Order: sequence, then structure tokens, then C-alpha cells
Amino acid sequence: VTTAPDRSGGSGSGRRGAARERAERLDAADPLRALRARFLLPEGQVYLAGNSLGALPVHVPARVEEVVRRQWGADLVGSWNLHDWWRAPERVGARVARLVGVAADEVVVADSTSVNLFKALVAAARMRPDRRVLVVEPGNFPSDLYVVDAVADLLDREVRRLEPAELPGALAAGLAEQLAVLTYSHVDYRTGELHDMAAITAAAHAAGGLVVWDLSHSAGAVPVDLAGAGVDFAVGCGYKYLCGGPGAPAYVVVARRHQNAVHQPLTGWTGHARPFAMEDRYEPAPGITRMRAGSPPLLSLLALEAALEVFDGVDLAALRARGLSLSRLLIDFVDAVVPEVEVVTPRQDARRGSQVSLRHPRAYAVVRALIDRGVVGDFREPDLIRLGLAPLYVRHVDVVTAVEALRAVLDAGEHQQPRYPQPHVVT
Amino acid sequence: VTTAPDRSGGSGSGRRGAARERAERLDAADPLRALRARFLLPEGQVYLAGNSLGALPVHVPARVEEVVRRQWGADLVGSWNLHDWWRAPERVGARVARLVGVAADEVVVADSTSVNLFKALVAAARMRPDRRVLVVEPGNFPSDLYVVDAVADLLDREVRRLEPAELPGALAAGLAEQLAVLTYSHVDYRTGELHDMAAITAAAHAAGGLVVWDLSHSAGAVPVDLAGAGVDFAVGCGYKYLCGGPGAPAYVVVARRHQNAVHQPLTGWTGHARPFAMEDRYEPAPGITRMRAGSPPLLSLLALEAALEVFDGVDLAALRARGLSLSRLLIDFVDAVVPEVEVVTPRQDARRGSQVSLRHPRAYAVVRALIDRGVVGDFREPDLIRLGLAPLYVRHVDVVTAVEALRAVLDAGEHQQPRYPQPHVVT
Repeated sequence: VTTAPDRSGGSGSGRRGAARERAERLDAADPLRALRARFLLPEGQVYLAGNSLGALPVHVPARVEEVVRRQWGADLVGSWNLHDWWRAPERVGARVARLVGVAADEVVVADSTSVNLFKALVAAARMRPDRRVLVVEPGNFPSDLYVVDAVADLLDREVRRLEPAELPGALAAGLAEQLAVLTYSHVDYRTGELHDMAAITAAAHAAGGLVVWDLSHSAGAVPVDLAGAGVDFAVGCGYKYLCGGPGAPAYVVVARRHQNAVHQPLTGWTGHARPFAMEDRYEPAPGITRMRAGSPPLLSLLALEAALEVFDGVDLAALRARGLSLSRLLIDFVDAVVPEVEVVTPRQDARRGSQVSLRHPRAYAVVRALIDRGVVGDFREPDLIRLGLAPLYVRHVDVVTAVEALRAVLDAGEHQQPRYPQPHVVT
Repeated sequence: VTTAPDRSGGSGSGRRGAARERAERLDAADPLRALRARFLLPEGQVYLAGNSLGALPVHVPARVEEVVRRQWGADLVGSWNLHDWWRAPERVGARVARLVGVAADEVVVADSTSVNLFKALVAAARMRPDRRVLVVEPGNFPSDLYVVDAVADLLDREVRRLEPAELPGALAAGLAEQLAVLTYSHVDYRTGELHDMAAITAAAHAAGGLVVWDLSHSAGAVPVDLAGAGVDFAVGCGYKYLCGGPGAPAYVVVARRHQNAVHQPLTGWTGHARPFAMEDRYEPAPGITRMRAGSPPLLSLLALEAALEVFDGVDLAALRARGLSLSRLLIDFVDAVVPEVEVVTPRQDARRGSQVSLRHPRAYAVVRALIDRGVVGDFREPDLIRLGLAPLYVRHVDVVTAVEALRAVLDAGEHQQPRYPQPHVVT
């Protein structure tokens, strides 16, 4: 604990020293502290962008090399049988199932989140042919907004953009009769707010509609209980908290009760009931397989399969507790040490995912300056600093280091330097 | 040259010895013979399934490892900028451009062939709103047939399945006024027949329709001149002759003259004009980028990028000459040595892709028995043995070995053994 004076006054450094001690105590007592060793993380960096791209699990490089050299290089086309490439989408889906709270045969890994959302929305809307309205939250991830619009255009439906809070009123005012499908993200990508999946799903069902949840920003960090909430469809990405590697394929969930009624429009041969019969007409495979379209990108898919082993033996409730502890510490410490920055993320645990977003008018420059200090978060238009707290590998001490770096950036005015002029690609 | 007698009579072994000598001479004189060293091929195997899964280029494992360890593992989310992951789909597309005969900015790599066909067909049909008919060849790859049907269903159009030979008559009999989009495969996946892209495209254009070609079984082995033929759209896969690895992402081509008029329905954010502005409404990016949808599977995409270097410095006309020489030798030697097997592939060079298909009532068992003898081809329902002649790495001596193995399988009755009972997954 240093006692040198700083900008926030005599008590600042004491508060900061106390925070680091609190963090060290929390890390020492953390039942999941050993999980971090499952990852290769760059030395000297605090990586808080796992909500954008998950870290590399230690065992994945060797597994990818085996896929490249042995499966592709030596066993070649025989690997479709020998290494069961053919069923890899269902096999990897079965590994995702526990993370989203469904049975193993209710998930398949395929395509990207956007493409899966398209498939799920068309399929769901077709199950409600006499209802015109597709509901989406206005703050949903842009791809989701765009895909809903595209589906409405193709199927001649109407889109209404409604915040969760506006939903009950709108349903009471006549939406209930018209609701075909509602699609929300479980966690808001900008604010980190966690929506009440069970309540929103129940409201949509009570009206006679179906739901499609996007789990990209929750699964792998926040327990998801799709079956408990009675969710119809869900999609999510493989490269954030699931740690499947850059652009890892996404997954799509269809509740078993709907599977054989689903007609999705991307009728590639791998979703056919008898793909090798090379039949003239499409007949969807029974079960979740009908959500497949073309051949899966196997290097990426099998990297995701290997990566999902980082969840082996991990209690998801404990993982959630760790995530909340991290975000609580971050919020508390920002309040104490960087009070001029607004915490956008809900302070109530039950309404918070596993990221904390801070508002600052020069957010982009702040993010860049933090990166130059070894604290990697990201920026979202127009003024958000996003700090992702992937609970598998982020430690409480990392949170303290990050907030100290933020304090230092602002104290030194680094965010006002001309070398950080304009927003730039940071995904 | 052995003189031992065999089943085909006293002249058989002499013919076979002569064939091997011819093959050795052809290989010795082959200006492209050095290309085979660019691949890792299993010892003691003749690999004739490169039309299904291309072989592994020597330099790819190290490149994939660099992507995994350095780009993903160390540079993490910063790789979107540092290694320009963001523009990888366009960058890899530019590498495909020469192989299909278009400019670098007319191709993007994204999704699977089926998904790209969906995008291209919807986009093309929307450009012909007053014309009802989508034409497809009845023998097209099943995914293509299914996707055309799905698009017709979504857009309320009608599908007509017409062989190339039936097209002129149908156009004259009233189709011309109704043709919206025609979609054919350049090479028939079963028979290896090469269609006349220029003539068919001209016929569709004369009627006022648009064309979408599937190049999965031609590009990389057969020169493709999309620009010369005035083709509007094309799609193709990355894992056959392009050697991009199992399930490598596919590509989609849009002629520059159409690009800014195209509205494809998979409106993911990566195809937006300003993706990082996170805008509320979709506005397609100018140019080919609008054909992108979600995040690309980067391990697979960057493996494809590396793999495409096997075409560096390769004259595509010489590659085609080598492919034709291989298939001519195969057909001649089958005629001479295995006359009871029917050659299904056209004998005229201009009508042949880079595979030879043979018909046999127990084709599946023959393929399995050949594999057990180290000759890897594949089977297609109901009675086809497909032998792919990837001209980058198959040698003339491999063709001789394959036909000799076929002769031996049939002589020994291996294809009648009960261990090869039923067709089974062989892609």
C-alpha cells in the first residue's frame, strides 16, 4: 500500500491499496481460481475483451494441429467417417447444451449468429402464419435488428421495436393478438443489462407468440435456463464467452417440441433427412439436424469443440457468482476512484450480465489509452467503454489494475492526446 | 514391365506396362510436375478425391498455428486491426478472383456455398420482379436444387428443371418472357460433364434473365472466365480444388455492374455500409462487401487464404492441359483394361471437367475395395465411382495405379465380399 498523494486526494491511494487487498483476498478464496490456468493469456496484459473474443485455451493449439495434420492432411476425405466430421455440428451442439440449459439434442452448431437468427426467425414466423408482428428490442445488436427487418420484408410481416418495459403495455393495447415472434438479446451488448428471460418469454407465450433469444452475450458467463423458461428458439455465438476462436461458428437451439414442425429456409443438403441419397426434393431431417445448411468450417468448428472443454467440471452457478463478484468490485471501485465516469450497467446483480460499461465523452480515446497501458477493453459508439469480465479467466486483481489504469489515463490526460483522433475498427 | 499372365489375357499386362511407360513419360515431360511438392500427401496412397476434399498444402499447418497462437492467443481482439481480420473476406476473395476470371473486387469469401447460393438467388430474383421462373438443371447438386426451391417458395416464384439441351426449346416455347434467373453448375458433380457457360449465359441473357453459376466442381481445376461469359453471379466452395481445408468457407461473385443494385436477405452487420456505427437500419455496403453476413470463421478462412498460395505462378491453361491429359489417360486405360466398366464422363475434352466417373452396379463396394488398396476415390448414388483428378498434385502414374487397382479388385471379386454391404457416409 503506497501512501503517496494523488489527484483524488489523500485518501485515494489508501482506498486503492485497500481495493487491491480486497481483490487479492477474493482471488485467494475463489473456488474457481484454478480455471485461469486453462488459458494462454499474454503476459503483462489485463484482458477485458472476452465478451468480444474469448481467450485461447491452453490445449487448443495442439488439437487444431492434429485436425490439420492428421485429419485433413493424412486421413483426408476419410475423416468424414473416421473422425466423424459428419456429426460434428450435433456433437459440438451437445457440448453447448449444458451452457444454455437444454438437452443435448436441442442444439446444433452451424453458420454465424446472424444466419442462425434468420433461420430461426423464418421458421418461427412460419409457425404463426396468421400473426403479423415481429417484436425486437430497439437496443438489440444491429445484426439482429437488420435480420428481423429482412425477415419481415421477405415474409410480409411488420416489425415493432419495443423495450422490455414497453412490452406489457403494448400487449394489452392490441399487440397480443398480432404477436408472431419476439426476439431479444439476453444481455444488452452495450450496457451489459441482463433481461428477464422467463418473464418476457411467459408474456410472449401468453399472447400466443413464439420467442427467439440471442445468447451471444450471456451463455458461458451467465447461467441460461432455456428449458426452464420454456424458450422456443435461441441462437448465440461461439467466440465470446465460449472461447471457440475468432469467428467460431454459432449455435441454434430449437426446443424439442417444435423440431419436427420447423421449416427453415436455408435448405442445404446437410440438413436433409437422407443427405447421401442425393434426392431431388428436400425433406428436412428429423430433429435439430434440419437447422444445418451447408458444410461446416471444420477447422473453426473443431477448435470450438476443443475449447468447450474449458467448461468441463465447472459449476455454472459458481461461475456466475465469480462473474458478479468481479463486476461488483469493478463498479464499487469505479464509484470510489473514478467518480466522474458514469457506470451504465445495472447495479442490481440480477439485472447485470458479465460486462461493465462506462460512459465517457472521449470513450474511444480512453479505450485506446488503456490498451497502450496493457488494459484491453473495447469501445462502442458513441461513448461507451466496455469492460468484459469473462469469469473463467479474469481475476479480481485484474479489475483493480484496470480501474487504476483508467484513473491514470484520465489524470495524465492521455485521452486528450491527438494520437487517438477517431474511432477505428475495434470489435 | 511384367509379362505374367492375367485375367484380361496375354496382351493385358503388356498393355498395362505400356500404359505405365506412357504415364512416366507424360509425368517427366510435365511442366507442372513440381507442383505436387507443394502438398503433403499420405505415403503409399493414390488420392483421387480432391474433387471432394483437396489435399493439405505443405505450408498451411505452420500458418494455421501462427493464426492460433499469435493472432488469436497473443494479439487477441486487436487482431481485427493488426492482422486485418476485418477485411479478410474481401482479401481472400481477391485471391479467388483469378481462378474464376473476374476482378479482385468482384468476389468475397463468406458462409457456405448453399448459403451464398441463397443470397445470390434472392438478390437476382429481386432484380427481375416481374418474371416468375427460376430455372435449374435437374442434375444439379442437391443443395442447389433444394435452395432454388426454398427461394421460389419465399419469393412466390416457380421452378423449372431443365437440362441445358432442353433450354433453347423451352425458351422458344414461352420461357423467354418468364425467365427471371437460371442457375446451373459448371461441372456436373456426378458425371464430370462441363457445361458451356458462355452459350447458356448468352441464352439466358438474350431472354432477359440473369444467371448464377455454381463453380464448386470447376474452379481451381478448369479455367473459368466469368467476365468473358458476362456472368452475373457465381458461387463456389473452398475445400475441393481450392484446397482450403475441410468445410472451408465458400465464395460469392457479383459482377461489378450489379453490385450496388443487389439486395441480399442475410443482412448481417458485417455487410453494412458503416458496421461500427451500429446504426439502427441496414444500409448495404457499396460493392461486394454487401454479400457478407455474420463474422467469418477465421481459422478456416485464413487456412483457405494460405492454401490459395498453391496457385501462385501457376498458369491456368497449363493446369487445364494437365487435367485433361490425366483424364484422357484414365479413360483410355479403363477402355483398354476394364472394358466392362462404363465411362460416364464425356470423352470430348471440351465437355469434361477434372474427374472421371465410372458406372458399376456395385460401385459402393468397388470404391471401398479400392480404398483398401490405397486408391481413394468416392461413391455417388446409385452406381457411380468418382475419380477426381486434381491437376495440382495427381500424376499420370497415379492414374495407372488406380486403374490397375480397379482391375485387380474386379479380378479378385473383392467388390462382392460381404464386408462392403451398404453405402455409408463418403462425401
